[in-house]
Amino acid sequence: MKKLINGTDTVITDALAGMAAAHPSLRVDQENRVIYRASGPRPGKVGLVSGGGSGHEPLHGGFVGYGMLDAACPGEIFTSPVPDQVVEATSAVDGGAGVLHIVKNYTGDVLNFTMAAELSGDEGVEVASVLVNDDVAVQDSLYTAGRRGTGATLFVEKIAGALAETGAPLAEVAAVGADVNARSRSFGVALSPCVTPAAGKPTFELGETEVELGIGIHGEPGRTRVPAAPARNLVRAALSAIHDDLGLSGENLVLVNGMGGTPLIELYIAFAEVDSYLRERGAQITRSLVGNYVTSLDMQGFSITVCRLTDELTRLWDAPVETPGLRWGR
Amino acid sequence: MKKLINGTDTVITDALAGMAAAHPSLRVDQENRVIYRASGPRPGKVGLVSGGGSGHEPLHGGFVGYGMLDAACPGEIFTSPVPDQVVEATSAVDGGAGVLHIVKNYTGDVLNFTMAAELSGDEGVEVASVLVNDDVAVQDSLYTAGRRGTGATLFVEKIAGALAETGAPLAEVAAVGADVNARSRSFGVALSPCVTPAAGKPTFELGETEVELGIGIHGEPGRTRVPAAPARNLVRAALSAIHDDLGLSGENLVLVNGMGGTPLIELYIAFAEVDSYLRERGAQITRSLVGNYVTSLDMQGFSITVCRLTDELTRLWDAPVETPGLRWGR
Repeated sequence: MKKLINGTDTVITDALAGMAAAHPSLRVDQENRVIYRASGPRPGKVGLVSGGGSGHEPLHGGFVGYGMLDAACPGEIFTSPVPDQVVEATSAVDGGAGVLHIVKNYTGDVLNFTMAAELSGDEGVEVASVLVNDDVAVQDSLYTAGRRGTGATLFVEKIAGALAETGAPLAEVAAVGADVNARSRSFGVALSPCVTPAAGKPTFELGETEVELGIGIHGEPGRTRVPAAPARNLVRAALSAIHDDLGLSGENLVLVNGMGGTPLIELYIAFAEVDSYLRERGAQITRSLVGNYVTSLDMQGFSITVCRLTDELTRLWDAPVETPGLRWGR
Repeated sequence: MKKLINGTDTVITDALAGMAAAHPSLRVDQENRVIYRASGPRPGKVGLVSGGGSGHEPLHGGFVGYGMLDAACPGEIFTSPVPDQVVEATSAVDGGAGVLHIVKNYTGDVLNFTMAAELSGDEGVEVASVLVNDDVAVQDSLYTAGRRGTGATLFVEKIAGALAETGAPLAEVAAVGADVNARSRSFGVALSPCVTPAAGKPTFELGETEVELGIGIHGEPGRTRVPAAPARNLVRAALSAIHDDLGLSGENLVLVNGMGGTPLIELYIAFAEVDSYLRERGAQITRSLVGNYVTSLDMQGFSITVCRLTDELTRLWDAPVETPGLRWGR
């Protein structure tokens, strides 16, 4: 398997150099492996820090900027960042109002962010955390106790980030993040495995005529394998799982997310099916995103994330954002 | 090969339904297969129409909106739109100031847009055209006389679109489009072939340890095949071809474009190498984009497009844009 890399050892370093070169709005600390807003912390604003294994871009580094994160800590491919990275980022973004950690529910991430929060607390930084565990596919998994965190991470980062920009206190920013997570559910489908640079071969095998329902964002196993089927059936399987857990009604924020290797035209085909399914149930797509946001390297497939909106959440979703991965006007 | 589709016959129809559902800012005419701004033509503004084969999303439909196109005409996968589509779009977006056709240099596209321009002229619409032929890889190709049109199409659509919003006359909007094309060069590299829904198999064969330099956006042959190499070497081969033709110096707009199946983290690795190469030659990256903009379905690989900027072009690039595929604030 061919990769557009210089070597397996320099993937993260080289990619960070590229982010720094491409985005003057970011400051990249190569030594500590942290991506910051170039503008630095704003006094009185809650700082938002997230992070996780690399290979899910634009998550998280691509969501650093006005209206979303203050810093992101990229680990190695599919590997949690170390506590030192998170401690460094937490200190650096503290504008005196405390710092929110947004943590996807994977054992390594939870462990390292928890340790970092304690160390940052010892340094006098007030830290709160939001755990994202939106994936309804499996209760426990290869890398988690409890549900995995996937697409809702983007929603939490956007909406908590918008509230933080208003000068809201840490407890409120953490509460809205937890609320968004509680109102969100995801389900992913793989048409192909992904290939990590280090392994150079597929992370798992999937037959020419089968797909995996409930796939994780690291290629970890889902619920079941089924024969390849029309997009309509795959979308309905995903939404049915979400509906069973969340109950689809009212106004919704919907992400139809590509896993990295799926053509955009196919994601639009999936979106049309999501729209049909929700309409049938009297639920409404009030806001939406279609594209590659929470990826799994070059995996072909998609995930759907639904968040049940309130007027307040819609207002925060609509608030201006200026990041490399998500951007709309002030 | 698995595809996220309902059937090979309904790919375009289903994807258009998805675009309509996802983007309230667009109006999709399914019968005539045209994607419009929902806001309709603005009196006195030059209308911009582009189009081409599908499979290159977000090009062109994703670039319909304020500051870019007024309408896009999607053909079948990798197949030119028919003249009727273009005539329909041209009439519909004419706000009385005439219409600019932005046409990628492929034989079918040129033929059908030329015919449409004549028919629209007969209907009393003033039409001008810009031909985009930025790809330095090959002089003639499978589908072209002369150079192919690739990444610069996005630059032409953005910059001509920005000028059109100011109320500039058709001749000026056409001239700036032609100028952007003349100042732009592209070169693509494939790590894998793409798979069309209808064929269901790779459009060409590429060995496990070889890459194709100068690939087209339909998988059509490039310049040469070489052994797989580090990203640095591939980027340098691409930029060397561009430099030979354009002469890299001064201020530049640079697109590092994914072909659809390449992880974003790898595109950042390529971007870092582009930055190094240009710095060595004393050239500057003044503005840039990194991501999937002019794709070739699920092909793994990248292309680089460089446009030599002037202050005026930079100003037009920075002008506000609100489309599904490119968006920054007013």
